[in-house]
Amino acid sequence: MSNVLDSFPETMITATPADGFALAITYSRLGVKSAQPDMDILEKLRPVYSEDADSLIASSQVVATHFQTIATANNYWR
Amino acid sequence: MSNVLDSFPETMITATPADGFALAITYSRLGVKSAQPDMDILEKLRPVYSEDADSLIASSQVVATHFQTIATANNYWR
Amino acid sequence: MSNVLDSFPETMITATPADGFALAITYSRLGVKSAQPDMDILEKLRPVYSEDADSLIASSQVVATHFQTIATANNYWR
Amino acid sequence: MSNVLDSFPETMITATPADGFALAITYSRLGVKSAQPDMDILEKLRPVYSEDADSLIASSQVVATHFQTIATANNYWR
Amino acid sequence: MSNVLDSFPETMITATPADGFALAITYSRLGVKSAQPDMDILEKLRPVYSEDADSLIASSQVVATHFQTIATANNYWR
Amino acid sequence: MSNVLDSFPETMITATPADGFALAITYSRLGVKSAQPDMDILEKLRPVYSEDADSLIASSQVVATHFQTIATANNYWR
Repeated sequence: MSNVLDSFPETMITATPADGFALAITYSRLGVKSAQPDMDILEKLRPVYSEDADSLIASSQVVATHFQTIATANNYWR
Repeated sequence: MSNVLDSFPETMITATPADGFALAITYSRLGVKSAQPDMDILEKLRPVYSEDADSLIASSQVVATHFQTIATANNYWR
Repeated sequence: MSNVLDSFPETMITATPADGFALAITYSRLGVKSAQPDMDILEKLRPVYSEDADSLIASSQVVATHFQTIATANNYWR
Repeated sequence: MSNVLDSFPETMITATPADGFALAITYSRLGVKSAQPDMDILEKLRPVYSEDADSLIASSQVVATHFQTIATANNYWR
Repeated sequence: MSNVLDSFPETMITATPADGFALAITYSRLGVKSAQPDMDILEKLRPVYSEDADSLIASSQVVATHFQTIATANNYWR
Repeated sequence: MSNVLDSFPETMITATPADGFALAITYSRLGVKSAQPDMDILEKLRPVYSEDADSLIASSQVVATHFQTIATANNYWR
């Protein structure tokens, strides 16, 4: 886990909503990697889940939750 | 992923709740596309998931989460 | 999608919690319709999902999320 | 749906956390009933879902979401 | 249901984050018990769900939602 | 459960977002352990769930919820 979080972004503040969304995607992936740090296994899982509609929707839900946090942190880039 | 987010809307501020809801739908789709950027695969998945009640409800959940964020950003269009 | 959102309610402000809950149900349905605008297909799905306990609970979860947003918008009708 | 919401509680304000939790349970049930208003069908579903651990956990998740809304509305009964 | 909620904790305020987390676990269990008050059935379900990874993760999600509410109520024990 | 929560971190305040994310992972694991305190059973479940994409995404969802709470507690490390 420590290895995984070594690459964790230093700040939640981003310039634009797009950058905030990219950060949400990064957080989602780090959440998965913290539970399965072996990149070989993750690579094997990718073709399965990325062609399964329900897995993609579930991924999108995780991104939505992280984006909510990040958007609040950035005061919605108002 | 960078390609996907190139089309990310520049602002979360919208004129009406309907526009905010449309933005939530856009965010949901970008969340899916960031995990599966290949449009051909996404097109193949569409007829499956869009005729499955549970997938549709799960999609609606993602939209609800994004709409919550967007509605807050817009101070509920009060 | 544009057709679906043409009927989107103009305001999130409602007179009572009951009206807010009804709006949450409307939002949930619009979330589903935005992913599957074909009413004939939706009608075919209804008997399946509406007699499946897990689908009903998942629907209720979407309503709960939207109700949270709407209740906040209305300052909890205090 | 109108019938279902006729019994909707008039206020979100409750005297105690226990009363707030009871209200969250009521909201969860009204969410289900709004999607399936036929009480005979709901009664048939009950023995199935109420002996399925995953359904019970999913129900508990809906209650948790509504309780969050209600607790906020009541300023956490502080 | 009334029986179940008779044991509901009187306050959401706790001394420490650990106590808040314990309260979140209590709330989660009360959510399940309110849907299935028969302790014999719940006891029969326990060995099944407590050895199923997905059920355990779903339980942990409910606890996370309640902990969010409780942590806010306690101003994060700052 | 008491044993599990004996190791609960004393504070939600962390120095960096990375530390906050690590805390979210800790909370998620404590949520699972509180439902299944037997470490031998948890060890047996690990190889199954950690090679299942949907389980990993669901874990990441729990982390996202806890991270939202922790990020708020830390005022987003602004």
